Amino acid sequence: MSAPYATLHARFDRHYLLRSSADMLEWDAQSMMPTGGGDLRGAQLGTLRSLAHEAITAPDMPDLLAAAEGSPPADDWERANLAAMRRAWVHAAAVPADLVEAHTRATSRAELAWRTARRDDDFRSFAPHLGEVVTLTRRVGEAKAQALGVSPYDALADEYEPGMRADALAPLFSRLATVLPPLVDAIIEAQARAPAPPALEGPFAIDRQAALGRHLAARMGFDFERGRLDVSAHPFCGGAAEDVRMTTRYDERDFMGSAFGVIHETGHALYELGLPRAWARQPVGRVPGMGLHESQSLLMEMQAARTRELIGWLAGAASEHLGRSISAEALARHALRVERSLIRVDADEATYPLHVVVRFDIERALLSGDLPVADLPGAWNDGMERLVGIRPTDDRDGCLQDVHWPTGAIGYFPTYTIGAIAAAQLFAAACAAHPGIPGELARGSFDTLRTFAAGHVHQYGARFTTDEVLTRATGRPLDADAFVGHLRRRYLGDA
Amino acid sequence: MSAPYATLHARFDRHYLLRSSADMLEWDAQSMMPTGGGDLRGAQLGTLRSLAHEAITAPDMPDLLAAAEGSPPADDWERANLAAMRRAWVHAAAVPADLVEAHTRATSRAELAWRTARRDDDFRSFAPHLGEVVTLTRRVGEAKAQALGVSPYDALADEYEPGMRADALAPLFSRLATVLPPLVDAIIEAQARAPAPPALEGPFAIDRQAALGRHLAARMGFDFERGRLDVSAHPFCGGAAEDVRMTTRYDERDFMGSAFGVIHETGHALYELGLPRAWARQPVGRVPGMGLHESQSLLMEMQAARTRELIGWLAGAASEHLGRSISAEALARHALRVERSLIRVDADEATYPLHVVVRFDIERALLSGDLPVADLPGAWNDGMERLVGIRPTDDRDGCLQDVHWPTGAIGYFPTYTIGAIAAAQLFAAACAAHPGIPGELARGSFDTLRTFAAGHVHQYGARFTTDEVLTRATGRPLDADAFVGHLRRRYLGDA
Repeated sequence: MSAPYATLHARFDRHYLLRSSADMLEWDAQSMMPTGGGDLRGAQLGTLRSLAHEAITAPDMPDLLAAAEGSPPADDWERANLAAMRRAWVHAAAVPADLVEAHTRATSRAELAWRTARRDDDFRSFAPHLGEVVTLTRRVGEAKAQALGVSPYDALADEYEPGMRADALAPLFSRLATVLPPLVDAIIEAQARAPAPPALEGPFAIDRQAALGRHLAARMGFDFERGRLDVSAHPFCGGAAEDVRMTTRYDERDFMGSAFGVIHETGHALYELGLPRAWARQPVGRVPGMGLHESQSLLMEMQAARTRELIGWLAGAASEHLGRSISAEALARHALRVERSLIRVDADEATYPLHVVVRFDIERALLSGDLPVADLPGAWNDGMERLVGIRPTDDRDGCLQDVHWPTGAIGYFPTYTIGAIAAAQLFAAACAAHPGIPGELARGSFDTLRTFAAGHVHQYGARFTTDEVLTRATGRPLDADAFVGHLRRRYLGDA
Repeated sequence: MSAPYATLHARFDRHYLLRSSADMLEWDAQSMMPTGGGDLRGAQLGTLRSLAHEAITAPDMPDLLAAAEGSPPADDWERANLAAMRRAWVHAAAVPADLVEAHTRATSRAELAWRTARRDDDFRSFAPHLGEVVTLTRRVGEAKAQALGVSPYDALADEYEPGMRADALAPLFSRLATVLPPLVDAIIEAQARAPAPPALEGPFAIDRQAALGRHLAARMGFDFERGRLDVSAHPFCGGAAEDVRMTTRYDERDFMGSAFGVIHETGHALYELGLPRAWARQPVGRVPGMGLHESQSLLMEMQAARTRELIGWLAGAASEHLGRSISAEALARHALRVERSLIRVDADEATYPLHVVVRFDIERALLSGDLPVADLPGAWNDGMERLVGIRPTDDRDGCLQDVHWPTGAIGYFPTYTIGAIAAAQLFAAACAAHPGIPGELARGSFDTLRTFAAGHVHQYGARFTTDEVLTRATGRPLDADAFVGHLRRRYLGDA
C-alpha cells in the first residue's frame, strides 16, 4: 500500500463508520423511535452526515487521489477501490458547500410541503417548493457535470447508477415503451377471459404474518445472527452489510403485501450479507449501483417467487402459518394479476417499467427546463394515459405520489427498471446453468439460486461495473430481451 | 452571550449530539442488535466517542474557559453551565492521551477476562488483569487529582458524583455500618416470627408481564411518545432526555423482578424526561450526579412502590394483567423480605448499603495500594461476614460479581447509597408537604409524587449540586437520618 493510498483508506474507513452509524440511527428513526425523538434525531443525523462528508473532502484529497493514481496499487481490488474512492470524492466534493446547504434546506421544506400537498391533492401550493428544488438540483447537476464531463442529468444519475448515461438508456426505455403497451393489452385480454380470481379470505393475524415473514426470510438464507426484520411505514432494507435491518408492514386484510415484501427486502439483504467482508468499510465493498441492488430484490420477489413452482410451495407455507386455507391457484391468480393502475409502488412487473419511462421522460424535461413545473400535472397525466393506458383524475394519485423529486432525487427512477431487466437476465442465466432451480423452488429452497447470485454478483462488491457483472454472469450487458421474453412466457405462455 | 462562551456552547452542543448518538447505538447494541453486528458496533462507538471527546478537548479550550470565566454570563443558568463545562473539560482533558488509550485497552481486556473468570469462579486468572486496571486507574486518578486539587480517589469519584469527597462520606457510611447490622438482625428476627410467605404461583407469561410493565410505566407518567420500553440482559435506562430508552428483563417464574424493575427504570426515565428542555444539549441540562439519578429510581421503586398502599394497588393490577390471583399480603411479604444475601443487585434496601460499604472500603484500599489485588478475595469475604453477616464460599458470588472494577469504575459504588439516602429524604419531604400521597398511591396514582420530584429535582438539571437540591427540597443536605428512620418505621413499625 502506498502512503497516499493508505491515507485514503483510513479516511474512507472513518467515512464508513460515521455513515453506517447514521444509517443505523435512520433505521431506528423509521422503525423504533417515538415521535418525540424527531428533533434530536434530525440534529444527530445532520452532525454525523456532515462529519462523514468532511472525512472525504479535506482540501488535500485531490493531491492524495492524484498521488495514489500516479503509482496505482498492484492489487486488482485496491485499484478498483481507488477508482471508487475518486467517484465518491467527486460526488461529495464537486458541489460548493453553500449550494449543498441551500439544496438541503430546499428539499427539507419541499418534503414537508409535499406531505401536506399530497394529502390535500393540492399541487398548486407545492409547485413553488418543487420549482426551488428543481432549480437547485439543476445547479447541483451542473457542478457535478463539470467534474464528471457528462450532462447534468447524467451527473445526477451517476450518484445512484455509476456510469449510467441517458443516451444509452433512452433506446432501451424507448423499446419498452413500444413493446410493453401491446403486451400489456394482450395479457389483460387473456386474463379477462378467465373468471375473476377468488378472494383470499382474511383476516390474517399480524403475528401470524410476522411468523410467515421470518420463515420466508430464513428459507431464503437470511441470517438472523446478522440482521433483523421489523416494521416501518415504508419498508426498506437498511443497517449495514454485517447487521442488516429489513422492515416490512402488515395489513390484516392482505398477507401478500408483507409476504412478497419480505421476499423483496430479503433479496436486498442477501446482497448486503454477501458483499466482500474484507472490503466492508471501503467503497469497493459496496454495490456498483442501485440498479443491481434492485435486481437482487426483484430476482427473488418477481423472478423466483412468482414462478408457479414457488407459488405452489408458498400457498402451503402461508396456509400453515396463517391458519387459513390458501390455494396455489388463487394465490397465483392474485400474484400474477396485471392491470393498468395509477400507483407505481403497487404496479405489477409488466406495467411497472411504463411508470418509470413516464418519470424518466418528465424528469429530464424538468431538469433541462423544457417542462415548466407548472405544467407537470398535465405532462404526467398525458404520459400515464399514453404509456400505462390510464389517466389520473387527481394529482394525489398522479404526480404527487412519489417522494423522489421533492427530495431532489432526480435520476433515481431508472434504477428500478435497470433492476427488473437485470433480474430477468440473471434468473434466465441461473436457470440455464442450473436447470434444477425451478424444482428446488417448488420445495421452497432458494439454495442454488442464492449461491448463483452470491457467486456471480454479491461477492464482487463494486469491483466490476453493473454491465461487467451482467456480462460475466449472463454473457450480455443490460439488455431488455430477457425481460420481455420472460413476460411473454409467464403471461402469454409463449415458449 | 460572550464570544468565548458562545464558542464553548457550540462545542458542547456538538459533543452532546455525538455522545447521544453513541448512547442510542449502545441501547441498540444491548436491546436490538444481532450478535454479528458486534465488531462494527464497537468500531462505530469508538469513532463516535473519540469525536465527542475531541469536540471538547481542543488545545484552545483552557483559554476559552478562562476568557468566559473572566467575564462570566449574567444569567444564572449560563453561569452554572459554564461551571459544568469546566468540570466536563477537566475530566475529558486531564488525562494524557496515551494513558487514556492504555486504560481503555486494559479495561477491555479485563472485562473479557472477568466474564470468563466469573463463569469459572477463577480469581487467580483474573487477578493480573485487575491489577493492571487498578494500576492504570490509579494513574488516571492521579492525573485528575492534580487538575482538581483533591485525592486520586475523590478525583475518580468526582466523575460520577461531582463534589463527592471520601472524607465527607466516610462518617456517613460508618454510621450505616454501625446502625444497620443490628437493625437488620432485628428485622430478620421479626420476620422469622411470621410464617414464611406463600409462594407467588406462576408461570407468568412474558407478554402479560410486558403489558403489566407498560401499564406501570404509563401510570407513573412515562410518556411513550418520548421513549420506549424494551428487553435487555442487563436492564438500564438509556437513550436521550427527549427519547428515553428503558429496558427490563422477564422471567416466567417471577413477575416481581420485571414489575419493580420497570418501576425503577421509570424513575430514572422520569428524571430524564423532566430535565430542562432548553438546556438539553448543554452540561447544565444533565444531572448533577449519579447519586441523585439513583435517588429518582429508588424514590419510585423502594420508597413509593414498596409502601403498603402501592403494593395493595399493584396486587390488583398484577392480578388483572397476569391472569393470576395475587394477594396484597403475599406480594408485600415478598417485596419487603429482608435477608443476608451475597449478591448486591438482588439485595433488599436494608442490607444493600452494607454491600456498598464493603466495596467503598475495599476500593479505596485497592487504589491506595494498601490492599494488594491478590488479597481481594479475603478482604471481600471478611467484609461481607462482618457487615452483611454472611460469608461467600466462592468468588463468583463474592468479589467477582460486579463489572465495575474490571471496567475501571472505581468510585461509582457509593452513588447507589447516596441515591437510597436521598430517596428517603425526598419521599419524607414529599409526604410531609403532601399528606395525600399515600392515599394516591393506594389508587395507583403517582401524580403528586411525580410533580414533587419534577418541581424539586428534575427541572433544575445540574444547575444546583446534589446537596443544594436536597437542601432546597428537604431542608437538609445528604443525611442518613431519614433513611434509617424509614427502615425502622417500615420494618419494625417504629412510629
